[in-house]
Amino acid sequence: MSDTSMKIKLPVACFLVQIILIILFGVLVEYDVNTDAKQWHEEIANGSSNYQNEFYYRYPSFQDVHVMIFVGFGFLMTFLKRYGFSSVGFNFLIAALALQWATLMQGFFHGMHHGKIHLNVESMINADFCTGSVLISFGAVLGKTSPVQLLVMALIEVTLFAVNEFILLGPLGARDAGGSMTIHTFGAYFGLVVARVLYRPNLDKSKHKNGSVYHSDIFAMIGTIYLWMFWPSFNSAITAHGDDQHRTVMNTYYSLAACTLATYGMSAMVCHEGKLDMVHIQNAALAGGVAVGTAGEMMLTPYGSMIVGFLAGVISVLGYAFITPALESKLKVQDTCGVHNLHGMPGVLGAIVGAITASTATREIYGGGLEDVFPSVADGTWDASTQGVRQAISLAVTLGIALLGGLITGFILKLPIYGAPPDTACYEDSLYWEVPEEEACNGELATVRTEEGEKLNA
Amino acid sequence: MSDTSMKIKLPVACFLVQIILIILFGVLVEYDVNTDAKQWHEEIANGSSNYQNEFYYRYPSFQDVHVMIFVGFGFLMTFLKRYGFSSVGFNFLIAALALQWATLMQGFFHGMHHGKIHLNVESMINADFCTGSVLISFGAVLGKTSPVQLLVMALIEVTLFAVNEFILLGPLGARDAGGSMTIHTFGAYFGLVVARVLYRPNLDKSKHKNGSVYHSDIFAMIGTIYLWMFWPSFNSAITAHGDDQHRTVMNTYYSLAACTLATYGMSAMVCHEGKLDMVHIQNAALAGGVAVGTAGEMMLTPYGSMIVGFLAGVISVLGYAFITPALESKLKVQDTCGVHNLHGMPGVLGAIVGAITASTATREIYGGGLEDVFPSVADGTWDASTQGVRQAISLAVTLGIALLGGLITGFILKLPIYGAPPDTACYEDSLYWEVPEEEACNGELATVRTEEGEKLNA
Amino acid sequence: MSDTSMKIKLPVACFLVQIILIILFGVLVEYDVNTDAKQWHEEIANGSSNYQNEFYYRYPSFQDVHVMIFVGFGFLMTFLKRYGFSSVGFNFLIAALALQWATLMQGFFHGMHHGKIHLNVESMINADFCTGSVLISFGAVLGKTSPVQLLVMALIEVTLFAVNEFILLGPLGARDAGGSMTIHTFGAYFGLVVARVLYRPNLDKSKHKNGSVYHSDIFAMIGTIYLWMFWPSFNSAITAHGDDQHRTVMNTYYSLAACTLATYGMSAMVCHEGKLDMVHIQNAALAGGVAVGTAGEMMLTPYGSMIVGFLAGVISVLGYAFITPALESKLKVQDTCGVHNLHGMPGVLGAIVGAITASTATREIYGGGLEDVFPSVADGTWDASTQGVRQAISLAVTLGIALLGGLITGFILKLPIYGAPPDTACYEDSLYWEVPEEEACNGELATVRTEEGEKLNA
Repeated sequence: MSDTSMKIKLPVACFLVQIILIILFGVLVEYDVNTDAKQWHEEIANGSSNYQNEFYYRYPSFQDVHVMIFVGFGFLMTFLKRYGFSSVGFNFLIAALALQWATLMQGFFHGMHHGKIHLNVESMINADFCTGSVLISFGAVLGKTSPVQLLVMALIEVTLFAVNEFILLGPLGARDAGGSMTIHTFGAYFGLVVARVLYRPNLDKSKHKNGSVYHSDIFAMIGTIYLWMFWPSFNSAITAHGDDQHRTVMNTYYSLAACTLATYGMSAMVCHEGKLDMVHIQNAALAGGVAVGTAGEMMLTPYGSMIVGFLAGVISVLGYAFITPALESKLKVQDTCGVHNLHGMPGVLGAIVGAITASTATREIYGGGLEDVFPSVADGTWDASTQGVRQAISLAVTLGIALLGGLITGFILKLPIYGAPPDTACYEDSLYWEVPEEEACNGELATVRTEEGEKLNA
Repeated sequence: MSDTSMKIKLPVACFLVQIILIILFGVLVEYDVNTDAKQWHEEIANGSSNYQNEFYYRYPSFQDVHVMIFVGFGFLMTFLKRYGFSSVGFNFLIAALALQWATLMQGFFHGMHHGKIHLNVESMINADFCTGSVLISFGAVLGKTSPVQLLVMALIEVTLFAVNEFILLGPLGARDAGGSMTIHTFGAYFGLVVARVLYRPNLDKSKHKNGSVYHSDIFAMIGTIYLWMFWPSFNSAITAHGDDQHRTVMNTYYSLAACTLATYGMSAMVCHEGKLDMVHIQNAALAGGVAVGTAGEMMLTPYGSMIVGFLAGVISVLGYAFITPALESKLKVQDTCGVHNLHGMPGVLGAIVGAITASTATREIYGGGLEDVFPSVADGTWDASTQGVRQAISLAVTLGIALLGGLITGFILKLPIYGAPPDTACYEDSLYWEVPEEEACNGELATVRTEEGEKLNA
Repeated sequence: MSDTSMKIKLPVACFLVQIILIILFGVLVEYDVNTDAKQWHEEIANGSSNYQNEFYYRYPSFQDVHVMIFVGFGFLMTFLKRYGFSSVGFNFLIAALALQWATLMQGFFHGMHHGKIHLNVESMINADFCTGSVLISFGAVLGKTSPVQLLVMALIEVTLFAVNEFILLGPLGARDAGGSMTIHTFGAYFGLVVARVLYRPNLDKSKHKNGSVYHSDIFAMIGTIYLWMFWPSFNSAITAHGDDQHRTVMNTYYSLAACTLATYGMSAMVCHEGKLDMVHIQNAALAGGVAVGTAGEMMLTPYGSMIVGFLAGVISVLGYAFITPALESKLKVQDTCGVHNLHGMPGVLGAIVGAITASTATREIYGGGLEDVFPSVADGTWDASTQGVRQAISLAVTLGIALLGGLITGFILKLPIYGAPPDTACYEDSLYWEVPEEEACNGELATVRTEEGEKLNA
């Protein structure tokens, strides 16, 4: 049995983790008032209505986010010619783990109730959000890691995500509904540092597999389009009810539209021969969603959102064209999916836009809505410019925790115990998956089919 | 014109059935109070609000279920290398028929109103549910049946489904919101017996087509992921409003997550060389949704759901590895999609879990919610242990009707009048579909493309 | 740099248009009461509730429509063997432009508020609707246009769409919630005339590329199935709340089901050898949604909807089999996707059905709901037969504006400045996209893979 065999490593990891999770859930987790039969019916008895259950006002958003996590991220990464099973499949595996672990970690940091974590649809959205951050990091190391490595990365990253999120939303009082900082910046820089530590000087042995084929690029567009369509739901999923959710959706919608035109224009401009590059379309067109992650719930205005989206598209394409190659050659960061361009830089842009927008908030503009968006400004704890400064500090904290956490995680993942792929078999499904015979064993598929066809027609 | 030509058979079947359906709908079907302009506005006049229309509290769930039926089931079955048109296309055809016929059958058994069947979004969900059961059976006979056979199977199965559902939810007073029994167990064992009766001793003549190619496995993952994501909506689509829907969603979410880790662990363990098998990932990871179909609306707790999901994943992979081959060699059941492992055993598990959970229900735990989940226990008609026994009897009834119904249906489908495929042309689209020329007639596709590419670049 | 290079043309077009859009949004657009923090909280202070925000009663419908526009239309057109990048990619580009421009045009015609356009989820739905019309026209010219041509077409078509929609829904007082006239008839005939003006006598030089391969047909089915599933949301997205949305959904659901059976029956009947044709299944099965676009919100009854859907399926398949070839040979209209069969004829059918259904409306049938569906009949401005006549006039107006507008647009698009593809490179991605090397440059992909596989296994 070779070193990369998963026959023992993966079952041990999966079963062990899952059993521990079940025990911890058994000890720590409870239904909340929205999901517990007895408590909810006490609410009903006190004059509430079933139609007021939080379920009806969050669940459609949750499902859109859920699609982004499993279809969006999963299929976006199928662009590689021989790594589709792993892209969708490992995405699926680590997401299934991360959402469970995130439930516990976020429950712990968001505040326990008499020693118990209370769950409802909002905690499910938060768990999916945290999972998204792990999947961003997955994009940076795509094709170069074993599933066991990914599970370990997920466990550590979820934990640090919860710590960072707690610091930002708790003590620092930052706002980040769509996660420009907590999800995108954190996930991207964490993943980039992990990729740096796992640098493979001889990765060009697998170079011919680090690319797409025609249909794999179309599979990837499934991921892109779903991410693009549902990003308004992502940014608005946990904002306050009423105008906040509604406004966040609208800002994200127009930001993405403007970002898309910027992406197409830039792509044709930077590619040789004036052609469009699928890598740009698949990724940069989404940067507009990332970049209004923080400010989307604010009174950014539609045209403000469009400016932000436009800038995000421009820098993202420039990143793919010029920065990613430099990152690899100069800084030895092999960023498979270019998460620096889709999540890193647009995340930082989003954090800055959020800080600026926050610092200009006034009661004149927000009226009674100031309490929903900036509660500490509304109640006079601090003023708008302080809010802006706290947003900026939050970005710095996020970068710090991501970089340091990624560094430590990278070294942990470097231990030679996880069955990581050799340099010659990166970006290759057949190392960890049984792949259909005719593609692995012979090149005569089409011919075989022909003979069959003739027989049938005869 | 060969025996398998659909030139006359399929049009006659489609038009005849559709015209009869239109006539029956004309005679029997009416809008209900939620959908009828006059009646609804009388409600409004009596103090109701448009926002209280049932539409807003069921339609998002309905659409998720709808996606599972048409995309989920349809694409899950595209794993076969040369049967993608039929998988998606016949799924589409029989679903379009089944949902219409189910509307009538369920309307009849659920209770007529002055001789009329009343429709709203809930009846649409129920029709889709019943359709799901037919599509499960379709999975057992996939690749070995003509579209006319499938239409006939759908007509009979929908009818028997409605009978079984009526017995369970009516006289027996069983609870089965997510259909572990009514949908999954019924559909699986019905289909397995049909497959048994249609046993083809010489099926290995098509053996080389009974497998996947690289991209067909990725298409199948579209089905898997959509089923997995929307299963919480499936199980909760017709539960009571409020905490019930909310809790069912959460239980299903965690059950599926635990099931996924169990599936990956088991798959690596049972496959030779410690690799993962796409068949397991595509199917067994969903067993957790099936297995909480009955108990999902109950106070199963998140960790209870995770235990059930974990077990479902384990037995499902074991089923694919050991039971399906034995079923074929010993019992002559050729179960193309392995529905016994995804729907059969997990459905039975779900029924048992439901019976146990029901038998332990107390007012202490459910409070005022007891009426929603176990109305007969709440009003004292019978106690919780009786509820459990009735759940268990429901499983037995379901198995009985499924096995007997499948047997009769199998013999009806065996009549040589439907244009069934010969043993040499199973799992093959080109028998019933016009397939694009270059793949059916020559193996030089790639080469042809090359020359074009060179011309263009020249 | 060749004439078809996008290196300058596309960036100039994208950036110029996007910057103008941002400026116009900055000058003209405002949040409405549902999305503005201050105004909404004034509503709250006056006794409203966050749960009454329009967001919760339109956003799920919006997202379904959004999926239809980007995934539905985008993937439906991926059926061509070498035009998948362009189908999804140009669909994405022109939709991102059209929805922004439509926001302004529709905002202008739907009524400004003190010189400002007010936005909420309903305006987003309307913008997506208008975008759909442009994408229908795109289907007629698919494979024969440059992205810059498409952007120009989108700008003009959106403008004329808004004019036509204004005339119909304003002065003429027509009802057309699902857009049989405004969206489908308009988009189809506009596109057909554009295709006529852009007629290419030597298009058979690209004939071998104007077809599908096996997997491209399966990609296209993703589009088909999503359009089919979400069409009930499309037709009901902007109808009145309550019974109207609910009834529209139900009518569309049954119309589509009946249409699907008709499509399968007709397809087997008209194809040689009695096989099914993917072109019919992908397209004609959707005609039932188009044909109840106008009457769907009316008291059409489920069986009435099924009759309409059945007829739509029949004429749509007949159109593909007999009319499209005749259009090309006799009228020189090269309709790539057959939009005449999916949107043109079913749209006209829908308009006629709508006129007839409207003319039979009575208070006896609609009760208090008459105000929602036919406000001018309810308040006595005109009677039901006048409503029917006005519906019929609306069809004529739509056809007139579409034909004339398409004519002018066609001549504008004929100018030799947009980098349109030569006759030899139609239906070919590699003209505007960087396509993966191994498919463009050699036919040995499978063989290369084999060697790798052997090495790995060794």
